[in-house]
Amino acid sequence: MSNLPARLSELIGKPVHDIDTPALVIDMDALKRNLVRMADFAKKHHVRWRPHAKLHKSTVLAKMQIKAGAAGVCVQKTAEAEVMVAGGIYNVYISNQVIAPAKLARVAALTQAVASHRGGQIAIAVDSPEGVSRLAKAMTEARTSARSSVATVIDVFVEIDVGQGRCGAQPGEAAVKLALEIRKHPALRFAGLQAYQGKAQHLRSAIERRMAAASATKAVELTCQLLKAHGIAPGLVTGAGTGSFALEAASGVYGELQAGSFMFMDVDYAQNERDPAQPQFEHALFVKTQVISTHASHAVCDAGHKSHAIDSGMPKVHAFEKKSGLDYFNGGDEHGILRPVDGSDRLPALGQLLWLIPGHCDPTVNLHDVMIGVSGGLRNGTVDRIIQVDARGAMT
Amino acid sequence: MSNLPARLSELIGKPVHDIDTPALVIDMDALKRNLVRMADFAKKHHVRWRPHAKLHKSTVLAKMQIKAGAAGVCVQKTAEAEVMVAGGIYNVYISNQVIAPAKLARVAALTQAVASHRGGQIAIAVDSPEGVSRLAKAMTEARTSARSSVATVIDVFVEIDVGQGRCGAQPGEAAVKLALEIRKHPALRFAGLQAYQGKAQHLRSAIERRMAAASATKAVELTCQLLKAHGIAPGLVTGAGTGSFALEAASGVYGELQAGSFMFMDVDYAQNERDPAQPQFEHALFVKTQVISTHASHAVCDAGHKSHAIDSGMPKVHAFEKKSGLDYFNGGDEHGILRPVDGSDRLPALGQLLWLIPGHCDPTVNLHDVMIGVSGGLRNGTVDRIIQVDARGAMT
Repeated sequence: MSNLPARLSELIGKPVHDIDTPALVIDMDALKRNLVRMADFAKKHHVRWRPHAKLHKSTVLAKMQIKAGAAGVCVQKTAEAEVMVAGGIYNVYISNQVIAPAKLARVAALTQAVASHRGGQIAIAVDSPEGVSRLAKAMTEARTSARSSVATVIDVFVEIDVGQGRCGAQPGEAAVKLALEIRKHPALRFAGLQAYQGKAQHLRSAIERRMAAASATKAVELTCQLLKAHGIAPGLVTGAGTGSFALEAASGVYGELQAGSFMFMDVDYAQNERDPAQPQFEHALFVKTQVISTHASHAVCDAGHKSHAIDSGMPKVHAFEKKSGLDYFNGGDEHGILRPVDGSDRLPALGQLLWLIPGHCDPTVNLHDVMIGVSGGLRNGTVDRIIQVDARGAMT
Repeated sequence: MSNLPARLSELIGKPVHDIDTPALVIDMDALKRNLVRMADFAKKHHVRWRPHAKLHKSTVLAKMQIKAGAAGVCVQKTAEAEVMVAGGIYNVYISNQVIAPAKLARVAALTQAVASHRGGQIAIAVDSPEGVSRLAKAMTEARTSARSSVATVIDVFVEIDVGQGRCGAQPGEAAVKLALEIRKHPALRFAGLQAYQGKAQHLRSAIERRMAAASATKAVELTCQLLKAHGIAPGLVTGAGTGSFALEAASGVYGELQAGSFMFMDVDYAQNERDPAQPQFEHALFVKTQVISTHASHAVCDAGHKSHAIDSGMPKVHAFEKKSGLDYFNGGDEHGILRPVDGSDRLPALGQLLWLIPGHCDPTVNLHDVMIGVSGGLRNGTVDRIIQVDARGAMT
């Protein structure tokens, strides 16, 4: 963590021009504006906001989010939670299924680790009876073996499948059954429902997203009614991403938003028709690259898909004020191919610096050890700070 | 590098079962057999073999390759070369264009660093006059500022485009002009031609690959003839990947093979119709994963595209002897969706361990900090060693 290459530390205070390529660069001004927009939105709509740290995997950025008003962070992996807790983030929700007993022992240890911190609380999702009993076993064992006499409790959300078709129990009876199971174990506290509709995030038209969110909300409502019929308070309903959060916020059932990607805004999310209820966010994450080879009808830059993820499509060449004149094509692991858009612009020169907006931020960040924070803009700004991707590769 | 998480070091000697998921695992027995096959092939065909370390990014595996008969390693990035040299690999060829003066200064520093080692030699590719003059400037400056009195020389390969349409000067006159340019500078030594046909590697039918390689060979021959006509010895012709190397070896013009991926064999390369002249390689790289959620018609595992690259397609579920009963579908950054092939097999149970064969090895390795080497097979073997991906994320 602390042993940054010397040439990176030396960058602080230097002009943006000095950043070697390829490099992951954050426009800190844009990021801060995005954060304020989201924090204001959550406040105005009286919803909790616990952004997903799977995006940035950085304790520094998690702390910035919490300072801006976030209640804590979500993560997908036990190892990510461990990095967050070690870095001083004590409200961490593992919004995913954890099944391996060795991992559940680590989750239980985390509940002990945060217990002495104000507001410290670990939460996790479950979607199967077996998941509940394994979690309960791990928590009981941790209580028995803990040096401290603290009998910690873990918040448990029942994950329901509200249309994504991945993890999650069926809404309704199956979810209620899990809540009842959870309530049998003194170390588990039924905390509410995990109801994230991942597919809704990337539907391009606002009306399609609205329909998907309405269907998710209906499934949540049904489950909440059934829970109440069984005498169980439904607790907190948590979910929502950058593509849909204004809909969940207006649903009347969701109490917590997990949206995180708005902070960076990738090409994929920018392609969504904007819901007028949502704030407008700016691109704040870029891959700086350089032209290393020029030809009659194309140029080649030094950023390939080992420096940005292409699972959601190719990056866009950032064009500042004017319309971009270049399209990016896949050139393999270490190269990008640049061609003029409709022959409308000249090719860049050898050595020219370019900025790519990643197709998908989360897995792009996961390729880098550091993000270089810049203040004063990409062209004339200076390097502000080097931000470690602390949880890079934390996948267990 | 040396501060492995304790739970990783403790794995050595333990059964494969104990490896937490997801994890990148090498079947060391299969890897060693693949290495012997390639070394034997190169020996039999009297060609040098300098495998691409962009695949494994590991000094430990580079040393295993050199022990098996490799002449050194190729890399794509200056930062990868630095890691290799720091790890004791002194014959390193940066088979790519380097344009930034700051990077070229680092390349020049590497030529000084390896100078005192037996067989130590840095090589690089160029495809433009500007590239040659920048490299010469960096080498001259390093000579002037070097503490040692060693006037080092860098081997320079002229990269020609033999059909990939990425980097590379045009074969023929343009290439000869670059060779003449190189010969003007005392710190540069014209070493030959870089002639890698990347597209040929992934053509599925053997006849298509044969045609692509024949066309590349023709371009190389033309350039060699022109070089000779200008009184320049053509030097070494280097190129070839796992999809085509038997063709380059038989071409009569290629003197060095850069193939590396055969060592791991991914799904993409395994889909090629095998050239009978090429040895048969085994899959040796796997992502171990676990089922974390089960449903009526699908199951979910804990390995998504943050643990394996999907640029060349989805991973395959390894089925040992029998035909695989499961297809892997993209489930996002942290999940994989598993469905029975044609309804032909039952779904796996919650907690079941599975092995994925990555779609593309190079960028998969780049997602991991370590590879876990296993001896005695994936099912009943034991953990042999933890191999650091030293150059993971080394992209500048």
